[in-house]
Amino acid sequence: MLMSGEAYRESLRRAKPRVYVDGRVVESVADDPVLAPGVNAMALSYDYALRQDLEPLMRARGVNRMLAIPASSDDLLNKLEAVRLLCQETGCAQRYLAGDALSALRMSAAVNPAYRERIEAYIARVQEEDLCIGIAMTDGKGDRSLRPHEQPNRDAYVHIVERNARGIVISGAKAIITGAPYMHELLVMPCRNMVEADADFAVCCSVPIDAEGMTIVSRPAGRPGEAAAKFSGRYGQATGVAIFDRVFVPWERVFLAGEWQHSAAVTYNYATHHRHTCIAARAGFGDLLIGAGALMTEANGIDLDEAPNLRARMVDLIKIVEGFFACGVAASVYSKVDSTGVALPDPVFANIGKLLLATQIYDMHRLAHHVSGGLIVTLPGPAEDHNPATAGRLSELLGGRSDIPYEKRIEAARMVEDLTASYQGGWYSVISLHGGGSPEAMEREIWRHYPLGNKVDLVERLLERGILADDTRQLVRNRQPGRCCIEGCMVPLPAPAPVKLVKKA
Amino acid sequence: MLMSGEAYRESLRRAKPRVYVDGRVVESVADDPVLAPGVNAMALSYDYALRQDLEPLMRARGVNRMLAIPASSDDLLNKLEAVRLLCQETGCAQRYLAGDALSALRMSAAVNPAYRERIEAYIARVQEEDLCIGIAMTDGKGDRSLRPHEQPNRDAYVHIVERNARGIVISGAKAIITGAPYMHELLVMPCRNMVEADADFAVCCSVPIDAEGMTIVSRPAGRPGEAAAKFSGRYGQATGVAIFDRVFVPWERVFLAGEWQHSAAVTYNYATHHRHTCIAARAGFGDLLIGAGALMTEANGIDLDEAPNLRARMVDLIKIVEGFFACGVAASVYSKVDSTGVALPDPVFANIGKLLLATQIYDMHRLAHHVSGGLIVTLPGPAEDHNPATAGRLSELLGGRSDIPYEKRIEAARMVEDLTASYQGGWYSVISLHGGGSPEAMEREIWRHYPLGNKVDLVERLLERGILADDTRQLVRNRQPGRCCIEGCMVPLPAPAPVKLVKKA
Amino acid sequence: MLMSGEAYRESLRRAKPRVYVDGRVVESVADDPVLAPGVNAMALSYDYALRQDLEPLMRARGVNRMLAIPASSDDLLNKLEAVRLLCQETGCAQRYLAGDALSALRMSAAVNPAYRERIEAYIARVQEEDLCIGIAMTDGKGDRSLRPHEQPNRDAYVHIVERNARGIVISGAKAIITGAPYMHELLVMPCRNMVEADADFAVCCSVPIDAEGMTIVSRPAGRPGEAAAKFSGRYGQATGVAIFDRVFVPWERVFLAGEWQHSAAVTYNYATHHRHTCIAARAGFGDLLIGAGALMTEANGIDLDEAPNLRARMVDLIKIVEGFFACGVAASVYSKVDSTGVALPDPVFANIGKLLLATQIYDMHRLAHHVSGGLIVTLPGPAEDHNPATAGRLSELLGGRSDIPYEKRIEAARMVEDLTASYQGGWYSVISLHGGGSPEAMEREIWRHYPLGNKVDLVERLLERGILADDTRQLVRNRQPGRCCIEGCMVPLPAPAPVKLVKKA
Amino acid sequence: MLMSGEAYRESLRRAKPRVYVDGRVVESVADDPVLAPGVNAMALSYDYALRQDLEPLMRARGVNRMLAIPASSDDLLNKLEAVRLLCQETGCAQRYLAGDALSALRMSAAVNPAYRERIEAYIARVQEEDLCIGIAMTDGKGDRSLRPHEQPNRDAYVHIVERNARGIVISGAKAIITGAPYMHELLVMPCRNMVEADADFAVCCSVPIDAEGMTIVSRPAGRPGEAAAKFSGRYGQATGVAIFDRVFVPWERVFLAGEWQHSAAVTYNYATHHRHTCIAARAGFGDLLIGAGALMTEANGIDLDEAPNLRARMVDLIKIVEGFFACGVAASVYSKVDSTGVALPDPVFANIGKLLLATQIYDMHRLAHHVSGGLIVTLPGPAEDHNPATAGRLSELLGGRSDIPYEKRIEAARMVEDLTASYQGGWYSVISLHGGGSPEAMEREIWRHYPLGNKVDLVERLLERGILADDTRQLVRNRQPGRCCIEGCMVPLPAPAPVKLVKKA
Repeated sequence: MLMSGEAYRESLRRAKPRVYVDGRVVESVADDPVLAPGVNAMALSYDYALRQDLEPLMRARGVNRMLAIPASSDDLLNKLEAVRLLCQETGCAQRYLAGDALSALRMSAAVNPAYRERIEAYIARVQEEDLCIGIAMTDGKGDRSLRPHEQPNRDAYVHIVERNARGIVISGAKAIITGAPYMHELLVMPCRNMVEADADFAVCCSVPIDAEGMTIVSRPAGRPGEAAAKFSGRYGQATGVAIFDRVFVPWERVFLAGEWQHSAAVTYNYATHHRHTCIAARAGFGDLLIGAGALMTEANGIDLDEAPNLRARMVDLIKIVEGFFACGVAASVYSKVDSTGVALPDPVFANIGKLLLATQIYDMHRLAHHVSGGLIVTLPGPAEDHNPATAGRLSELLGGRSDIPYEKRIEAARMVEDLTASYQGGWYSVISLHGGGSPEAMEREIWRHYPLGNKVDLVERLLERGILADDTRQLVRNRQPGRCCIEGCMVPLPAPAPVKLVKKA
Repeated sequence: MLMSGEAYRESLRRAKPRVYVDGRVVESVADDPVLAPGVNAMALSYDYALRQDLEPLMRARGVNRMLAIPASSDDLLNKLEAVRLLCQETGCAQRYLAGDALSALRMSAAVNPAYRERIEAYIARVQEEDLCIGIAMTDGKGDRSLRPHEQPNRDAYVHIVERNARGIVISGAKAIITGAPYMHELLVMPCRNMVEADADFAVCCSVPIDAEGMTIVSRPAGRPGEAAAKFSGRYGQATGVAIFDRVFVPWERVFLAGEWQHSAAVTYNYATHHRHTCIAARAGFGDLLIGAGALMTEANGIDLDEAPNLRARMVDLIKIVEGFFACGVAASVYSKVDSTGVALPDPVFANIGKLLLATQIYDMHRLAHHVSGGLIVTLPGPAEDHNPATAGRLSELLGGRSDIPYEKRIEAARMVEDLTASYQGGWYSVISLHGGGSPEAMEREIWRHYPLGNKVDLVERLLERGILADDTRQLVRNRQPGRCCIEGCMVPLPAPAPVKLVKKA
Repeated sequence: MLMSGEAYRESLRRAKPRVYVDGRVVESVADDPVLAPGVNAMALSYDYALRQDLEPLMRARGVNRMLAIPASSDDLLNKLEAVRLLCQETGCAQRYLAGDALSALRMSAAVNPAYRERIEAYIARVQEEDLCIGIAMTDGKGDRSLRPHEQPNRDAYVHIVERNARGIVISGAKAIITGAPYMHELLVMPCRNMVEADADFAVCCSVPIDAEGMTIVSRPAGRPGEAAAKFSGRYGQATGVAIFDRVFVPWERVFLAGEWQHSAAVTYNYATHHRHTCIAARAGFGDLLIGAGALMTEANGIDLDEAPNLRARMVDLIKIVEGFFACGVAASVYSKVDSTGVALPDPVFANIGKLLLATQIYDMHRLAHHVSGGLIVTLPGPAEDHNPATAGRLSELLGGRSDIPYEKRIEAARMVEDLTASYQGGWYSVISLHGGGSPEAMEREIWRHYPLGNKVDLVERLLERGILADDTRQLVRNRQPGRCCIEGCMVPLPAPAPVKLVKKA
Repeated sequence: MLMSGEAYRESLRRAKPRVYVDGRVVESVADDPVLAPGVNAMALSYDYALRQDLEPLMRARGVNRMLAIPASSDDLLNKLEAVRLLCQETGCAQRYLAGDALSALRMSAAVNPAYRERIEAYIARVQEEDLCIGIAMTDGKGDRSLRPHEQPNRDAYVHIVERNARGIVISGAKAIITGAPYMHELLVMPCRNMVEADADFAVCCSVPIDAEGMTIVSRPAGRPGEAAAKFSGRYGQATGVAIFDRVFVPWERVFLAGEWQHSAAVTYNYATHHRHTCIAARAGFGDLLIGAGALMTEANGIDLDEAPNLRARMVDLIKIVEGFFACGVAASVYSKVDSTGVALPDPVFANIGKLLLATQIYDMHRLAHHVSGGLIVTLPGPAEDHNPATAGRLSELLGGRSDIPYEKRIEAARMVEDLTASYQGGWYSVISLHGGGSPEAMEREIWRHYPLGNKVDLVERLLERGILADDTRQLVRNRQPGRCCIEGCMVPLPAPAPVKLVKKA
């Protein structure tokens, strides 16, 4: 049953997690100002799903789109739009990670059917109760040159310390959990491939936010209480560390427990879903930059139609944002439905889109700064707005166009500063670059999935023969087995499965 | 009725166009070696359409995909695949321009219904007879700072010099016509917006290739007869100038004759269709570079899996090619069907894709060179292959891996040289940059169509209010009327038309 | 006489400027914590000049290098090194703007000799008293589409409101003054070219920091008092607005007063000197990023020699920093000494260097983030370091290599965050992009000074003649008079002045 | 004694090398049209050195600058100018490689003094006789995963097959020798580091061009005889393979013969000198592109001052060319004189400059194409210029501005095509990318020489201490011994050797 934002806040108050922010304990996650921007963003994902006009985007088969498992290109496209919409409003909606994880979980049942029933029961419960699920994937990792079981400190990775009839007991740390404090549950997932000796580290399970033995240490969400942060003071994201000290998890919440050979699949399938979603999230952030940049030029008294230099920069910004968004669209169109019914975005397009946003977020900042001008980091701060000794005179002296008051101009300037030249701006950069995997991870996936052999065959064929004969059999042969998509999705195939998409009425 | 490649050649022999190449007259277009690579490429588009296995891609409703008018996202996606497939084989298939022009022509009937019947009859005939149509759009242009009617030399733009009961008489020059000599007809189209005084220049009509008074002066197609050009000696493209000296065109072949106010729409609609198609064409060329680059590294004895530096360059190359192809996919998905039933690709995505390929073709060349090594322009040329004094020794000395013969290595090297470091390579660069409009033209279209106002509204709303209220009415308001898509296609709309795509079984 | 840092602080205490920061009045600039990082940075420029080992760099002819006027390529090269050294320590040394302005002032006497004696007396006094001079150049500007005299609000630009026997009276606002609060004097300079009607706005004069009628409204310097800002809490930069309300300036401090035709020269000469200096400043900042990035990888347990991907990013970072620094070196080598004895850096190289740093500062941030990893914005903040409930456990769980303690790792992470993902990081970006003129200003200067005509002549000559004849007379002809350097500095000239540089023993 | 160009041609006629081009034997290198563009370019380097007005640039201490060994920053700067001047005229002067090799040879005597006398005698003879020396460095290399002594085919690398009292006998192949056919001698140099087992491959020696047993297989120089190649038909470059079949070399011409441990030094020192020189060469090519691009816009009727978009592209082109040239200047200023008196350019700046030109040559082509327009690859070719049936009409129809005749416009178009969209254009790209070492080689050298440790120390110091104490001793400590310059050239050093450059009167 879909909750409202208010019901979500109320539900948070029913749990008693052990949460620290900035060195102090948080009594009520739903009510502490340092977490309010994060809670606000999550609440919006609830309220939007209840809006009738947004229903086709925000719900799928009665489930909040953020928790729905895509079953078709259609679903994937609509998820992109839904995530972009939420991130336009909140900077980053955070809640979509849950859906990505549920998809990966269901896919894992295909190779590891022992857990199928539990997984399906879990998915059904999460969707039915309309929960917020935090994804606890990135381990502390310790010494990066060592495998989990080689670490001098076993707690560097979350692992099973005990198994009994009722369940398992886990210990260790997960280092980066988006929105950790204001979730209902955390879903612990493995973050890498494993070898047999790592079996204890191959663990996937669900832990209630106030499970005994779990402690969350978080940063504040956004920039709560900062007067200059009109936007990030309202919507923001917390990232937290979760410490597990002998946390008990009953079997019905356990989805992987020692099957080390299935660890990689869970990790990579989640990554592909998640990178696809990230594309939409950052496109929403891009919409904010595009709008804020254009607003600031207007406040500076500049008509973009008359300023070819600045207009070119705006077009560059649009080109970047829609350019990587297009990769999300293509990944949706070229998705494949697996045996469990999950539509997996095409990994080549999804990884290219994520890679483009990861590196170009810096260009997006540059372009927003370029069109906005230097005032965004030099104009007096908000404390000056009410200084009787200076406020009036500043307002007279620092106005731009006479029909746009100084107050409006400085508000636009602070919006650009907030998004791009503050702690929050830095956060958006770094999280775009490294969140969902660093650029190297994307490059590896592109390489792994690209049907390179097909292209080599093509050229060999062209070199060996005269005017092309009438078969292209080699086109679908994998030159390097395992490197290419089975059906060579990037190279058009004659039969039996031509790409065929139609718009439903 | 679909022709075969051979039937196409035969049909060329029936016309007697006045064609000059390299200063001499061409007696038979179908048989002259200097045009053979172009004729071969066109012929392939015929033969592929007859292949049963390629039917879903290469035909639409019985018509060759190169002449079909897209009616849906489905059609647009399949056109992309079809064009990419042909360009993988031929470098550039050339024939797709016809389909783009037919689409623009049908759309023009919506605003200029007087010509509807003629246009539909023309489209039906072209499709039925399975013709090759050359697009004669780019005028000589003369002094670029003057409008058509201001030119000291009126012939700088093709224009109507006489009208009578039977038809019109036109004069002037079209400067860049792809594949001009080996077409059945040329479709004369206006290349810009016009003012009333330009009325005589607002002309669109169809001219048989051997019309009285028309002369074609062309470059050779590809690199015919050059031993080093194993690929471009077989497939290539001619570009020609068409000189019109009082060419008579009967009314049934006239689709615009003085209605200056409709000139821009014909030009821009063609441009949008064509830029979308260009994306697929250059992706096919990209496939050749990817395959040739990988083949050359193999011939050099390098295993890309063990060479992270070169592998990273291959991934960059893939990223570029699939990155702009994704824009073509997105333009297809977000297409709109107009009142005449034509699916127009989304202009923002189509122009971004074309812009990306236009500027990144140079990076594609760089990356192909990077992985291939310097030998591609320094190894001895093909004349040396059979020099008894040197050939044997060179073969011994310049081999790479012992299991790959020198002959194979040098063939791969010459393929990369042919594609990227020859006249043909230069042609692909320049035509990618300027063909279908220069980068400035794309930037203007992106600016013109982007719903910038929606984004500014979004930010203003976020600045003005507290926690978001429950309406997003402003989201779909056009801040700057005329700049945005009517329904704000880039900003997700609640109701009534959610994006909804499904894969057909 | 050279002051020490301590003497500088003492000297600040003797003035009584009217300064506001964050809405409150600052009683003692030298002692208020919100300005301490700025005062510290200035003090370092004093202390370094007193160090004997740094004498060749930090002093020129007995004067602090920050106030010295370059007389040769030698001086310019040494200034680059001196500024880079100070900015390595402080992020941005700020004081070098004074020297740039003194150079421009002396050059202005060449065209406007009426002020020569005053100017020289002023320069001598500033150097003798070893002062800090703030450069008050950027006006409020009001409506950017209007000239100064057209503004509805005359105070948008600083201007002369009264002249009398003793001096002038000025009003208006200067919007961006680096280090404004902790200067001894402000040097008011015009920020643009003027027309006759703007004569009242053509004003250049020196104003003591505590002049009657002047109010400074400033941001804090750096991030004072923030525990996470170990670096920016110690060294930082304030930018302030100066409001002039009928400030009296005696004639001996006036260097331009109505001679509108000389306004542009003052502005542009300052800009050329300043852009040259900015190159060194940002190279010093680049050194911090290079060092911090390498330190963070070490703390993460990564050996860059074994990590080709990350090493490639470090090389990219080095390439950017030394690439733009090289432009500063070239501008020094190709400098010209004017009739007043000032060595003006070559404007083409100086503007290219500034343009490269302006746009690539974002890439520098990206690369520093790339090598550092996502932890820099997700690890718990400093308040957590002393939380008895969490600190010990975090230290155990989040360590990297076992021989590098968590405390050291998190310190490195916070250094990277401080420099690149905080308000301060944003400040460095924006100030690099827009400080000293926006990219468009640099592009205009490059265009204005480049000897394009020489290159066109070269090509025309090559096209017109056979094997080159023995004269190159046209090479030094200016095709577009006024666009090229008089002596065509970019094109090597035979005689009479070959470039000739030697290293002194 | 300095030769004239004509004397150089005459001297070529005295040798009888065994040369093949395009499968046929060349009887007279000086007179065969296929090599004329290369001979012309070399001849220019002779004629320019005789010009009195160019003396300061083109000669050093009486020796042609192309053969002079730099002894100071002054020499290095003048070499840059001299090379740029020659390459402006010829595209690529080729002869400068000799000087780079002589410098490396002299430096090798410092570590391998046994050869000092011979080396000095050789240098003296080459300079005195004013010879052209081809640099035969790049071996065939065979299987790239194997060392020289591991190759199944020993001839993959040139090596010593016999030693006797009079000299050595060598066999094998050198694969890429610039200008090979029209040299007086080839200098065989090793192309890599060696191990003891490679001793036979560690060979450096001088071989007369017509030595018994040596065969040269070359490409034509430039585009001889092609009507469209007005420039490359006059000046161009041949690259050749040299096959050594038991070539005898007397001891006085041998400079390394088995001392495998010195092989790397010869290779790397040559590379540093050569990369520095390449910077100037490509800047000269850049001047041609800048001039040709500007000329073409003029011929198109465009005033760049009124076309901000195209002007921005011209500024981009200038930025690239002068940006990498600046690195050459900086490498000169920061050069170090070794114990043999050779001024070695700073390797960090030299490698950055070469790396920038290697990758940006493609952007240079793009920008030249952008400003020139698509006509450069579509206008009719030169054979059409004299076709009575079309020439007159084309001239009427395809003119641009009425005051610029079609003939001039098409000549400018063909110049741009020749430089960038022909075989020659491809050659310039690939040779810029891979000539003098591929980008990976430059990246390794930058990494190897950069004083990274100094930067890490800097940051550690800033983190560990409060307000900076008065010593910077650690600044000059090498954190990673062997990685940094001994004296930390990139980090300003207090004493004893401040950078100190003055301009000579």
